[in-house]
Amino acid sequence: MNKIAEDSYVLVYRDRRRRWLVKPKDTPKLHTHLGILDMTALVGQDFGVNVTTTMGDELTVLEPTIEDLVMKLSRKTQVIYPKDLGLMAVKLGVRSGSRIIETGTGSGATTALMAYLVQPTGMVYTYDINPEFQEVAKKNIERVGLSKYVTFKIGDSRLGFEEKDMDAGILDVGDPWEVVHSMKEALKPSGPMAAVTPTTNQAEKLVAKMKEEGFVAVESLEILLRHLEARVGMTRPSNIMVGHTAYLNFGRKTLPPAAPS
Amino acid sequence: MNKIAEDSYVLVYRDRRRRWLVKPKDTPKLHTHLGILDMTALVGQDFGVNVTTTMGDELTVLEPTIEDLVMKLSRKTQVIYPKDLGLMAVKLGVRSGSRIIETGTGSGATTALMAYLVQPTGMVYTYDINPEFQEVAKKNIERVGLSKYVTFKIGDSRLGFEEKDMDAGILDVGDPWEVVHSMKEALKPSGPMAAVTPTTNQAEKLVAKMKEEGFVAVESLEILLRHLEARVGMTRPSNIMVGHTAYLNFGRKTLPPAAPS
Amino acid sequence: MNKIAEDSYVLVYRDRRRRWLVKPKDTPKLHTHLGILDMTALVGQDFGVNVTTTMGDELTVLEPTIEDLVMKLSRKTQVIYPKDLGLMAVKLGVRSGSRIIETGTGSGATTALMAYLVQPTGMVYTYDINPEFQEVAKKNIERVGLSKYVTFKIGDSRLGFEEKDMDAGILDVGDPWEVVHSMKEALKPSGPMAAVTPTTNQAEKLVAKMKEEGFVAVESLEILLRHLEARVGMTRPSNIMVGHTAYLNFGRKTLPPAAPS
Amino acid sequence: MNKIAEDSYVLVYRDRRRRWLVKPKDTPKLHTHLGILDMTALVGQDFGVNVTTTMGDELTVLEPTIEDLVMKLSRKTQVIYPKDLGLMAVKLGVRSGSRIIETGTGSGATTALMAYLVQPTGMVYTYDINPEFQEVAKKNIERVGLSKYVTFKIGDSRLGFEEKDMDAGILDVGDPWEVVHSMKEALKPSGPMAAVTPTTNQAEKLVAKMKEEGFVAVESLEILLRHLEARVGMTRPSNIMVGHTAYLNFGRKTLPPAAPS
Repeated sequence: MNKIAEDSYVLVYRDRRRRWLVKPKDTPKLHTHLGILDMTALVGQDFGVNVTTTMGDELTVLEPTIEDLVMKLSRKTQVIYPKDLGLMAVKLGVRSGSRIIETGTGSGATTALMAYLVQPTGMVYTYDINPEFQEVAKKNIERVGLSKYVTFKIGDSRLGFEEKDMDAGILDVGDPWEVVHSMKEALKPSGPMAAVTPTTNQAEKLVAKMKEEGFVAVESLEILLRHLEARVGMTRPSNIMVGHTAYLNFGRKTLPPAAPS
Repeated sequence: MNKIAEDSYVLVYRDRRRRWLVKPKDTPKLHTHLGILDMTALVGQDFGVNVTTTMGDELTVLEPTIEDLVMKLSRKTQVIYPKDLGLMAVKLGVRSGSRIIETGTGSGATTALMAYLVQPTGMVYTYDINPEFQEVAKKNIERVGLSKYVTFKIGDSRLGFEEKDMDAGILDVGDPWEVVHSMKEALKPSGPMAAVTPTTNQAEKLVAKMKEEGFVAVESLEILLRHLEARVGMTRPSNIMVGHTAYLNFGRKTLPPAAPS
Repeated sequence: MNKIAEDSYVLVYRDRRRRWLVKPKDTPKLHTHLGILDMTALVGQDFGVNVTTTMGDELTVLEPTIEDLVMKLSRKTQVIYPKDLGLMAVKLGVRSGSRIIETGTGSGATTALMAYLVQPTGMVYTYDINPEFQEVAKKNIERVGLSKYVTFKIGDSRLGFEEKDMDAGILDVGDPWEVVHSMKEALKPSGPMAAVTPTTNQAEKLVAKMKEEGFVAVESLEILLRHLEARVGMTRPSNIMVGHTAYLNFGRKTLPPAAPS
Repeated sequence: MNKIAEDSYVLVYRDRRRRWLVKPKDTPKLHTHLGILDMTALVGQDFGVNVTTTMGDELTVLEPTIEDLVMKLSRKTQVIYPKDLGLMAVKLGVRSGSRIIETGTGSGATTALMAYLVQPTGMVYTYDINPEFQEVAKKNIERVGLSKYVTFKIGDSRLGFEEKDMDAGILDVGDPWEVVHSMKEALKPSGPMAAVTPTTNQAEKLVAKMKEEGFVAVESLEILLRHLEARVGMTRPSNIMVGHTAYLNFGRKTLPPAAPS
């Protein structure tokens, strides 16, 4: 069941920089500077095989992980990284069956990861104000086979979401403070939210608004990822490093004060 | 359905440092230095309510997320953090239905997160060489209601796992290089593995062994998390920060070279 | 000539956390929880000796470096760290003979390092608006023997400095943007300035003002320092780490545009 | 006295990436893609002037700081950065009059900064095993006008230094542990040393050797520098960042145990 199919995404891998994500159906011959790889000949074989190009170079044919797919989707906007998505998923408690509200859809990278995690019984409701933008995301999600777990909506989320009692929410818009109230209305009580903000100014404004709307456990943070070049006798951190992607902001909805217990 | 029950874990929250994770059944009266909270009176109320202690202090009663539960479990060993677990989950592609192999069980913190993500149809097979240690983990997992998705096994994973064709694998032992071969045997072709190593020496030895066993896309990395104190007009990074938890190492199983295509 | 004198500062050292900076004259007997050390018996001995307390514990008697002295001075306000001071010194080009303008004096920690570097022919002119504050700094600087290289002044630096043609300048006040114009007037053409700002908001306001006043090569940055626990076979980064001290901001004064060449 | 001379190094500055370090004597016309700048016309003018190229582009003519000069020297080997040099200078207590021992000379970048700080009465004694390498450094140091404060020596520092009672020492060689004993012999009692090691393995071996040779206050650390893009309303850390330069290792020489006091 882990066989390469005509319509499977296949990750042809040489190293961290030279990797191709293609489908045999769409790319029967993969032309690289390392030679040509006959993709149709791979159909029916196991993922994980090591193959040789026409120029004698060895490549590995891997089954793409959700990380590979998400990174491909996000390449255009360069904002969302697995390091950030992973922590968001844990802090939001996303799992099979979760109902997630998101705005904006963007390239669909975050949407894709969340859809992957809520399957097969959950749903990601994702809003975008820009229909053309969302059309791209829709195709992206379709291409990676996750459309069943995503409901696309066009609309101004500042005016509210149609969904209620959502398990968790994600804000990835330029003015997230304008959507905090809508988010609160859409979340179930105690439900967590996350917001992605590139600048400190956005984080500052957002956090103030979240506290005003009664969210608690409000926190902002950033994640730095550094590779270690682990080589026998000469191990050292990588000198190439991404310095910043975005601040991640979290909080949980509360209800108005109850009568004293 | 998001109501507080007798047997629910409840997160009583004041701030990042003052939080209590208890069940009304086990702790009918929660005694804190901020006063006493009548937990039984909360049963039947919504999660998310703000309540007042006998001393007039306001607390919020939250539904714990998987992060809250995992952090509670890991508190004794202090190794696994949500920032690390989140990235591991994404890079391993864990989702509903995944079959995960893990060694060692440790406190069960990693096991718990993975079980949470594979439910309701997946399974985490977790090995530990120490029966007493695993007994603690078993109780932890039971307490957080995830036992159905975990199979506990006592055994020396250096000698092999009983499972085959696992979707992903996790190594969290002191000598992970000794288990890489067993891991390879247990994984499905192209299946990803992750290993947690606190020291650079372990990462170095492990990575060499993984490459020797034919794993590709081998990488080691570390994640640094820093809080931002986002306050209007006086935003600054937190001066308190964890400097190191562990290096995370990743790779994917390959098959022996196929005949040239 | 490297002998311990009655009036020398002496660093009694056990480890990073247990260290005492005292003078034999003022502390003839050093009482520690590791036993008592007879400081007067050390007079005339070489710095660097290993000695034994009354309880049999071994300690080393070191000649304090300027870092030891500065860290002692800054302990009260906790803002300035050697990592920051070192880069500031390099970027400002401070050296023997330099004439430095500074505001505010604060605890005198920055002043002390700069005085140390400009000796024996340079001078640090340091302003503070608060006479009591500066009195403390004056004593600090005196105690570490650097008074000859410091001129203390009480005054509101927003209204201007009395000095002109300074080689470099340092701002460490809460509203540094208010002093940028004064700084420009006091600096020699092309002279570099540095400003220490704990918050992003301060850095933002300051940088805007510096550009407005014609400073070029304007940059803001922060420095993170992490220890490595280097131990044979078990090397790992320290898990204790300071997350933030301050943003350092730099720029260089320019002259009004010349006629086209 | 802060005038541009025929033989002055001049930093022609546009922004962080577009900067040229030249002398009017050697480069009478500076050709850039922003147009041509007549350098000889600048002679006699003040540093800090803003000038216009033949294409109408505005550039600033700055007096280079020691940082500018050092960065230019180190560009070839890419190892030493101001952030590292600054902390080393502070921790070694380098100042006017200091006598510093160094091996190896390398490109002379570290040598240059130390020479700059010890002037006019101190001296940097710098060893290299490779005469050709040192020839390059010698020219570099000459070019930046610091030759009077540097004594160049060819020799294998593993076999010992000719100097004694040095105030501080610097190791920047591939096998620093082989030179620790020589360093101890050359330092004054209590004298501090620093060693630059790119890998964790080197730090590990070095630190063990330093402790064995009786150095105390031994510590290893790394410095990360991140720029902040401080812009009104849209401040964020830079996404470009150097992930690693080297570990810095420090310690202080002690004397054999004295008789109990």
